[in-house]
Amino acid sequence: MSEVKFNPHVSVDCVVFGFDGKNLKVLLLERHIKEQNEFYNDKKLPGSIIFETEDLESAAYRILNELTGLKNIYLSQFQSFGDPKRTKNPRDIVWLENTTNLKIGRIVTVGYVALIKINSLLQLKNEYADVVWFDVNKLGKTRLAFDHVQIIQKGLAYIRRKSDLEPELLFELLPRKFTISQLRILHDTIHQKQSDVRNFQKKVKKMPYVVALGEKEKNVPHRAANLYKFDRKKV
Amino acid sequence: MSEVKFNPHVSVDCVVFGFDGKNLKVLLLERHIKEQNEFYNDKKLPGSIIFETEDLESAAYRILNELTGLKNIYLSQFQSFGDPKRTKNPRDIVWLENTTNLKIGRIVTVGYVALIKINSLLQLKNEYADVVWFDVNKLGKTRLAFDHVQIIQKGLAYIRRKSDLEPELLFELLPRKFTISQLRILHDTIHQKQSDVRNFQKKVKKMPYVVALGEKEKNVPHRAANLYKFDRKKV
Repeated sequence: MSEVKFNPHVSVDCVVFGFDGKNLKVLLLERHIKEQNEFYNDKKLPGSIIFETEDLESAAYRILNELTGLKNIYLSQFQSFGDPKRTKNPRDIVWLENTTNLKIGRIVTVGYVALIKINSLLQLKNEYADVVWFDVNKLGKTRLAFDHVQIIQKGLAYIRRKSDLEPELLFELLPRKFTISQLRILHDTIHQKQSDVRNFQKKVKKMPYVVALGEKEKNVPHRAANLYKFDRKKV
Repeated sequence: MSEVKFNPHVSVDCVVFGFDGKNLKVLLLERHIKEQNEFYNDKKLPGSIIFETEDLESAAYRILNELTGLKNIYLSQFQSFGDPKRTKNPRDIVWLENTTNLKIGRIVTVGYVALIKINSLLQLKNEYADVVWFDVNKLGKTRLAFDHVQIIQKGLAYIRRKSDLEPELLFELLPRKFTISQLRILHDTIHQKQSDVRNFQKKVKKMPYVVALGEKEKNVPHRAANLYKFDRKKV
């Protein structure tokens, strides 16, 4: 039984997706590491190690709030990640040991996901200057800590499955009055594909819950598009 | 940071549901505890603590095989359970410390679920005499260790959501030729409800993928029912 005489640490990581009307974004923290007198920057998900007396969900809400100031966001547990190799980068371990004052070996992390509309009610406060909304389509162009690329991808896959079951989920992210092109951009980012514009228009015509308002966009630099609303009763 | 100076143990628990043509069952282990010269029996899910060098999924497959002899069963991770109170029963802790030779505090467990058809190819071997297929509808009448009642319920809810999305899942559990009453029992157990027999017949008529074979059951003590097959191409 000697093989089990170890305890990993347990952490939670929060994958918060937000839509600002133009792009699907994910909430990340800028990480600044000093390494042999050189500075190194990358990004990570808001996440940390759970306390001894709290359950996983409480830890997720506490940590998201402590690191980003955000609260009243509904988090769903979607998957745990426990590959021993997820902490193989010595830079991640050094950083963690410096920030937690703990000797860190292996960490099993429990992933939580949220989907929110980025609007005026949800501004990041000044004291959280290292918190950024990062474009999901540009993740390939940045450096992320640990296995956070994989965690974000799995979070997106979870949202994809969930929104196929409950289409109303996507509409909670859109403004109350939206254009078909906003819906398409959101749909395509979640499904990680590029829909043909005309085919997508046809697809939307078959959604009884997407209702034309008979209004057009105002004050836009391009040709004003028709506006639609989501009718929950027609799902 | 003193609050995080602890490490919980991490375990996996496997919720394996099987259908024998009559009842939905879950795979459990009989647990025999000797307590102050009295014997105490209850049941638990096949599960144990992960090894230092294995990932969560490998641990789930290893532990299921070690404890039940079963292999080649597809396990899906569905949820992790980390309430500090899940190990509040001292009986569970004493048993765990005796079987693992570890000092146990808190345990975060990662739940895996599988759905299988119980048939002649899947017999439990004699050396696993403490492994039982237990009727899901009778769980309220037995004693289960830790929070295993809750883990089984959450596993069932996961299967319910998944089979609503992919109806073919249920048919993998049924015999190749099945009766509507077998389908109803399976459906009702997964949905934890009791369908009206005639309404269920009507519902099945609307499933193009349930095809009448023009055959009846043979050698049954009751009136022989019509047999059906599942046609994957018509889903």
